Amino acid sequence: MYRTHTCWELTAKNVWNQVTLCGWVNKIRNLGWMTFIDLRDRYGITQITHDPAQSSLELPEMKSEYVLQITGKVIARPDTMINKDMATGEIEIIASDIKVLTKAKLLPFSIVDEPNTSEENRFKYRYLDLRRRKVLDNVTFRSKMLTFTRNRFSEKWFIDVQTPIFTVSSPEWARDYLIPSRINPGQFYALPQAPQQYKQLLMVGGIDKYFQIAPCFRDEDPRADRHSCEFYQIDCEMSFVNQEDVYAVVEWYLNTLIPTLSPHKKITVAFKRLKHREAVDQYGSDKPDLRFGMELVEMTQDFINSWFSVFKDTVANAWSIKAMKFENKILSRKEADELTEEVKKNKAKWLAYISFDAEGVKGSIAKFLSPEEIETIKTKTGAKEWDTVLFVADSYDVVTTALGRLRIFIRDKYLTIDKDDLSFCRIEDFPMFEMDDEGKLDFCHNPFSIVKWGREALKNPNKLEIYSEQYDLSCNGYEILSGSIRNHDPELLLEAFKLVGRGEEEIKQKFWAMYEAFQFWPPPHGWFAIGFDRLLMILKDEENIREVYAFPKSWRAQDVMMWAPSNVDQNQLDELHISLNLPKEK
Amino acid sequence: MYRTHTCWELTAKNVWNQVTLCGWVNKIRNLGWMTFIDLRDRYGITQITHDPAQSSLELPEMKSEYVLQITGKVIARPDTMINKDMATGEIEIIASDIKVLTKAKLLPFSIVDEPNTSEENRFKYRYLDLRRRKVLDNVTFRSKMLTFTRNRFSEKWFIDVQTPIFTVSSPEWARDYLIPSRINPGQFYALPQAPQQYKQLLMVGGIDKYFQIAPCFRDEDPRADRHSCEFYQIDCEMSFVNQEDVYAVVEWYLNTLIPTLSPHKKITVAFKRLKHREAVDQYGSDKPDLRFGMELVEMTQDFINSWFSVFKDTVANAWSIKAMKFENKILSRKEADELTEEVKKNKAKWLAYISFDAEGVKGSIAKFLSPEEIETIKTKTGAKEWDTVLFVADSYDVVTTALGRLRIFIRDKYLTIDKDDLSFCRIEDFPMFEMDDEGKLDFCHNPFSIVKWGREALKNPNKLEIYSEQYDLSCNGYEILSGSIRNHDPELLLEAFKLVGRGEEEIKQKFWAMYEAFQFWPPPHGWFAIGFDRLLMILKDEENIREVYAFPKSWRAQDVMMWAPSNVDQNQLDELHISLNLPKEK
Repeated sequence: MYRTHTCWELTAKNVWNQVTLCGWVNKIRNLGWMTFIDLRDRYGITQITHDPAQSSLELPEMKSEYVLQITGKVIARPDTMINKDMATGEIEIIASDIKVLTKAKLLPFSIVDEPNTSEENRFKYRYLDLRRRKVLDNVTFRSKMLTFTRNRFSEKWFIDVQTPIFTVSSPEWARDYLIPSRINPGQFYALPQAPQQYKQLLMVGGIDKYFQIAPCFRDEDPRADRHSCEFYQIDCEMSFVNQEDVYAVVEWYLNTLIPTLSPHKKITVAFKRLKHREAVDQYGSDKPDLRFGMELVEMTQDFINSWFSVFKDTVANAWSIKAMKFENKILSRKEADELTEEVKKNKAKWLAYISFDAEGVKGSIAKFLSPEEIETIKTKTGAKEWDTVLFVADSYDVVTTALGRLRIFIRDKYLTIDKDDLSFCRIEDFPMFEMDDEGKLDFCHNPFSIVKWGREALKNPNKLEIYSEQYDLSCNGYEILSGSIRNHDPELLLEAFKLVGRGEEEIKQKFWAMYEAFQFWPPPHGWFAIGFDRLLMILKDEENIREVYAFPKSWRAQDVMMWAPSNVDQNQLDELHISLNLPKEK
Repeated sequence: MYRTHTCWELTAKNVWNQVTLCGWVNKIRNLGWMTFIDLRDRYGITQITHDPAQSSLELPEMKSEYVLQITGKVIARPDTMINKDMATGEIEIIASDIKVLTKAKLLPFSIVDEPNTSEENRFKYRYLDLRRRKVLDNVTFRSKMLTFTRNRFSEKWFIDVQTPIFTVSSPEWARDYLIPSRINPGQFYALPQAPQQYKQLLMVGGIDKYFQIAPCFRDEDPRADRHSCEFYQIDCEMSFVNQEDVYAVVEWYLNTLIPTLSPHKKITVAFKRLKHREAVDQYGSDKPDLRFGMELVEMTQDFINSWFSVFKDTVANAWSIKAMKFENKILSRKEADELTEEVKKNKAKWLAYISFDAEGVKGSIAKFLSPEEIETIKTKTGAKEWDTVLFVADSYDVVTTALGRLRIFIRDKYLTIDKDDLSFCRIEDFPMFEMDDEGKLDFCHNPFSIVKWGREALKNPNKLEIYSEQYDLSCNGYEILSGSIRNHDPELLLEAFKLVGRGEEEIKQKFWAMYEAFQFWPPPHGWFAIGFDRLLMILKDEENIREVYAFPKSWRAQDVMMWAPSNVDQNQLDELHISLNLPKEK
């Protein structure tokens, strides 16, 4: 037994106890007549004191981060020295023995709240980075959220099933990670992008309610809100449910989780419902941040007879004009240029604006607009003195995307939003089909979602107006959940696939287990998956998802601490029946 | 909302309620004047009745496994019809509406307790197999054991950390599974054989207590108690602990788990301690089954002057002779031959035996032994009338292995052992080093375990008598746990590596993160890992580990349901910078 207590648990109750503690030197102050050591472990900090006048103990050499084992007596601090911010602030330890358990060379950076080093260096020495309170706090919170989540779903009769990590490649969706098989030469396993097929098969197997905090693997290019290689989702599938049954579980979970683990967070927008089309129309995004206004205002028809040729031509082309009010802001030339750059990044050719100041209407297009048009703009956007109204005129997709992203850009640069506010928005009625770049009809999202209003709806001659019972949940502008009611009827599934020019043979070949299983009495079923890491990132106010993993991958999908990926031996490749086929040097 | 209740929850309290249930037809009995449907879901079975004389409801066509939605009124069964074995045995439902939700083709096998089909067929249609009570029970139990385990460790302040699944190859131990990197051409990730390095680095990071039900991946050939591709372990690492601290956690966990989840199991041998050498000496195994006797009896020195040349020569060669008593058994010729075959499988040339019946001493070597030798045998083995004593004379390793395996063979074929008895045996003091086939000193197990009695012990000139603080736990003949106290002192680590002819450069190259981390004040730490699947297999009386997974791999490491592994497209290989290098056809 190395220790009797942790560095967090001693209080006035322990006064006069003989104790042994272990931990790292957080701080050491040698005042000559007295030495104070703040001993730190994961749980807390305890102050150790040594008074050479009172003790024959010879202090060993000690510096920050030395690992010590200290034995001593707990004494009460004098009233004036009590530290109420510290769990152990009522006491200190008079050391009778100090052992240096391990010591060694200089650290690459100091263990402080804001270390003066690069992210790469922090990740390279992640085991030191973990000693920082903030990183430890993320790791601890993650563990609590894992436990909390699993217990809540278990209590609701969900069965935790570990679906296989070695499965089959389905290049239908994102890119798969592949694992060459030694025992089956020339063949490959794939890591699951998500356990979709397995969880549907669990429903066919009568499991009724499945959940798992599932590792998912997609070989995508790195992004700030997406972790390379692996990420985790709270993955559920339920039998005999409709969309409302599924959302009842989701809302119950979030309404339980947040007040328990993050009580300082406030749900200010509680599960507002928007159809997919409405979200794009009003916020230029299918994952809108509802913590602030700046809704997009449809104005195409208002400029049908405009003298302003750009607007008039846009209408004539059956394109779109939308406006967005920027309250209490008159743009400087530089600011206007910067916002214009933003919309150009998203394919818009141009950002127009007018503003209202004490002297009247100003801005890039003020002089082209008639007084009636300006009046309409004021009425529809509600613009008042000192407001600016921004316009994009282009194809519908460009207008909504450009203004939607501009809205977020303005949020980050100009608005003050309480980071503890949470806005949840249900997005529903996703289109079932879309036109691909070659004008061919294709599935918009998951082909296994059921068509809304069933078989009859498939006959709609405008295939782009067929909707699926797919849904998302956004939080503060992040997509944190997807789900759908499944199409469990093999005939209806076949009809949907046929509409995009894909026949039974292809389904059988690509999804044979599921297609076969659906012949054997599947129950109606539906699912959702919550991005565990992304939700955690929001709750912990992190902007980069890498911060919520104990051992993150860098932006080049590397583990810079472990040197992964790495070269391997030729005999390893030989056993796997593969050889390298490297791109030629330029 | 498809249903108001599950098929398990209605009791006499619900009488006269209007309810809707969903499930599969478990059984249907049409008696003409009355139809009874047993409707089944995961939770239970409810009886539905239809009396054509009392109801205008037209019954749809229904067969076993059709999926139904049934609405009706709960009524109390007549006293004589109450079924006390059924949760819902007090009631039945008078159907007012029956909808067939899905129906389809003939099943490949019936959903009964013992289906008349092959394992391969069960796994191919695992989603149907899952509807069987026994399989569902294993899946449900697994979920309960996951939840129970995680909660216990969380309560004891262990942090659940999901260590990376994409890591670096360490061909030091078993064979790695590799994943080619698209972004880093020519390089490979490896799936972790266990999270060893990460969990040690967590200790350096001050996490203090880590646990995870960790997926592990080893590219080994399939075996009955080892699942292909992936398996799970309850993985722990703790700081500032010695061996007794670690075992306190292990024993507490098992002593809590078993009475709670498997109360019919009895711990008949509670954590007996044996040194590794003692276990091999006494049971011929480092994972002894202690539920029965048949200990190996050392007899080499007793035959030093034997007239029986085989024994005498064995002693002269400094080899070994051990005996094992088989109580209440006189072997037939055929039985003796079969046992001999068994020891030959394990490299012994020969099995000798004598037996004691009413007429005196018999058996293959009875005539070669002196009366004194027979007396010694009786004394040392305790053999009595109607017992047989078995002998193997060979090198020590062959004798112990052959008799150890023979002991298990006899257990399975001849002995009656209560399958609910659990015998736990701690195996300690593993040798640190062994001689490899070329007579070169090598690490016996994990090189990162600390040397018992520290630095001084390494100086022992007989390197084979240096022990490590490594330990195992066996249960009923299965190894279910491994662990050790780590060597966290980089200098001592270096010394141990040097003894097997490996220098600092090699350690730095192969284990650089850990070697570097050990320079920065690691705490003393130790670990254990319990084979989650194997423990589950024991608690559920399964002899094949495949039965404890929802979706198992077949013996050829294949998922026969999903067709994994499979061929992949050429462009997938191209993106990963690899090409196939198949063995030539013979």
